[in-house]
Amino acid sequence: MPVNLSAPDPKTLHPVPGVKLGITMAGVRKANRRDLSVITLAEGSQVAGVFTSNRFCAAPVQLCRKHLASGTGPRAIVINTGNANAGTGEDGLVRAFSTCVALARHLELAPEQVLPFSTGVIMEPLPNDRIEAGLPAALADLKEDNWGVAAEAIMTTDTLPKAASRQLRIGGKTVTVTGISKGAGMIRPNMATMLSFVATDAVIAPALMQSLVREAADLSFNRITIDGDTSTNDSFVVVATGQAGHAPITSVDSAEGAALREALVSVAQQLAQAIVRDGEGATKFITVQVDAGGSEAECQQVAYAIAHSPLVKTAFFASDPNLGRILAAVGYAGIADLDQTKIDLFLDDVHVAKQGGRNPSYREEDGQRVMKQSEIDVRVVLNRGTASATVWTCDLSYDYVKINADYRS
Amino acid sequence: MPVNLSAPDPKTLHPVPGVKLGITMAGVRKANRRDLSVITLAEGSQVAGVFTSNRFCAAPVQLCRKHLASGTGPRAIVINTGNANAGTGEDGLVRAFSTCVALARHLELAPEQVLPFSTGVIMEPLPNDRIEAGLPAALADLKEDNWGVAAEAIMTTDTLPKAASRQLRIGGKTVTVTGISKGAGMIRPNMATMLSFVATDAVIAPALMQSLVREAADLSFNRITIDGDTSTNDSFVVVATGQAGHAPITSVDSAEGAALREALVSVAQQLAQAIVRDGEGATKFITVQVDAGGSEAECQQVAYAIAHSPLVKTAFFASDPNLGRILAAVGYAGIADLDQTKIDLFLDDVHVAKQGGRNPSYREEDGQRVMKQSEIDVRVVLNRGTASATVWTCDLSYDYVKINADYRS
Repeated sequence: MPVNLSAPDPKTLHPVPGVKLGITMAGVRKANRRDLSVITLAEGSQVAGVFTSNRFCAAPVQLCRKHLASGTGPRAIVINTGNANAGTGEDGLVRAFSTCVALARHLELAPEQVLPFSTGVIMEPLPNDRIEAGLPAALADLKEDNWGVAAEAIMTTDTLPKAASRQLRIGGKTVTVTGISKGAGMIRPNMATMLSFVATDAVIAPALMQSLVREAADLSFNRITIDGDTSTNDSFVVVATGQAGHAPITSVDSAEGAALREALVSVAQQLAQAIVRDGEGATKFITVQVDAGGSEAECQQVAYAIAHSPLVKTAFFASDPNLGRILAAVGYAGIADLDQTKIDLFLDDVHVAKQGGRNPSYREEDGQRVMKQSEIDVRVVLNRGTASATVWTCDLSYDYVKINADYRS
Repeated sequence: MPVNLSAPDPKTLHPVPGVKLGITMAGVRKANRRDLSVITLAEGSQVAGVFTSNRFCAAPVQLCRKHLASGTGPRAIVINTGNANAGTGEDGLVRAFSTCVALARHLELAPEQVLPFSTGVIMEPLPNDRIEAGLPAALADLKEDNWGVAAEAIMTTDTLPKAASRQLRIGGKTVTVTGISKGAGMIRPNMATMLSFVATDAVIAPALMQSLVREAADLSFNRITIDGDTSTNDSFVVVATGQAGHAPITSVDSAEGAALREALVSVAQQLAQAIVRDGEGATKFITVQVDAGGSEAECQQVAYAIAHSPLVKTAFFASDPNLGRILAAVGYAGIADLDQTKIDLFLDDVHVAKQGGRNPSYREEDGQRVMKQSEIDVRVVLNRGTASATVWTCDLSYDYVKINADYRS
């Protein structure tokens, strides 16, 4: 039951010159389900990515890092759902590389020019034979206006495909930024989200690419959480084909650079928030903002303590203004010298707690009114500095338990 | 639905000479419910406690620390359920102290000789007038064999009272250790559990008292978690009345000291594990053991990452051997230099993962068999050192969500 989210209209997803997508059914885990996607990138495309910080990172993530570092220039991406190829040891690396070799042979590339991605169940052998058998069908389907189908094909427990697209003008040229993402569970990105691919035809200087992608991730996927479980497969990859033909963007300080940065960040944020809106069992979309902290890091710490508290999340599910639970989470967030008598708590416009205690003018019915909304802003004011941080999350419902108790059955 | 836990037989709870308990209904939150307990301690009793690390610690916790530090020698304990008196600011401190003053007047003590405890809803004003009005009835009920009734009176969402009692011989004298605890939700003790009171008539040297209590807490209440929410009211208090009349115990290195330590730790562990067995919505009791780590701290870090993962906990609820989720939790536990190719995972006697990958000889039906049990041992071997740590937790079920979505209604 996604929160204020609907399937993207394919017509609104602008193709990105130089990027083609092909999708097929390879029967990775279930039959008659689109589970294999191939994305080809025009020669000269630049690719940068950020990946999970999970030490049990999946075989494809390990290969992606290696292939990006090889400097051979990525020309193709292969994505399967149904199997994460994580917790699969040496054998997982062999199977992931085998799919790269197979796709490279079809496209006359070096295996290092292929970036593999997997999402699905952990610790089960990747059926790479079925994936490799499906490649010809995926390649036969390659076209530029296939973003909507690809968004569906990378879904696992997602209930809706997630895609976003923006266009802007740079140096008299129209520049497109289009991306897709998937999430639903095991979502507490740390350096990236479950899976997200964004492409643009903008011309971006190689030196700027990685920092731009890192910043976009930090302002989007690194600000969401559903269940606090950092996935083994988190990957956020941005492709810049450079086919728009404007003068190269070398810095985000220029007007053009700032405009491109804004477009990239807004697409990334839209994709990241879509993951939360479609979080497993989500019935509410919660924005947790922590202000007046001593540092952005401590504000994030407090925001995540609130966003991860099962007691806070179940109270949102119940629309129960049991807001002391939020104060408790602030208290155990790990700020050793936190002075509770300085804390203020707001629920949207309602001033709930003042100087660490119940605000004398707070009325239960006001809190109740806000808790019934499907979108809620929680604001904590630490009154100990000038830093701020915002995190997006959802509530914890029966369905989260149901979905994760049933996931494999 | 507690896991292999039953209400203690009052006859098995040995009275502790010098400790009397009185219970009544004060209507703190609901009528016709025992919600007020008074415990009196014989003159000369020693008291030591450990309290929550939550920076939003409740007013009674702040007063307890102050009164224990006053050196006046605690002679009485007053406990109310239904209201935690946390997140109540200055007004909460005034109300908590007022109950101390009232009880002190009845017992002809200084207010600092009274230790107040509260548990229940956060951020609501403590009805101290009703508590103070109930004191005479509680005092009229004072008796040594009232432990079972007190265990019931401190329950909130607990479904069963929790008590444990042991006797041992020291210096030819019979020594008793008897205690009670309550928990159920907001359980991730950090320095102590929600509420636990243990008394002994052993004669313990003042210098040994605090370290003994700290060690008992570290080996029991600081090893459990239900939902990762560290309460604002966690308190673990141990009373030693010294009435057994044996020679004072000055160290745990002596045979008597070791025996007393063992009895105290085992009572504390039984009370702590009872809280997990009666965890909100719990259907399984899980022991997470992490071995061969570089330090006890990193073993605990890994054990808690597993014990807090909603995905791991829902898989246990579903009896689904979706064990890759455990590897994922190990991976994001925060050990930067963790080498996944060294990790082994065992479920009871079943060797699930070997060198970071699925153990070739692992069969799904073996994992399934263990997952169906009501008591499950998870063992992770890091193969990077000699340290170990054990944490006890429970699964995450529909009922956890239900209980916490309904708690106040």
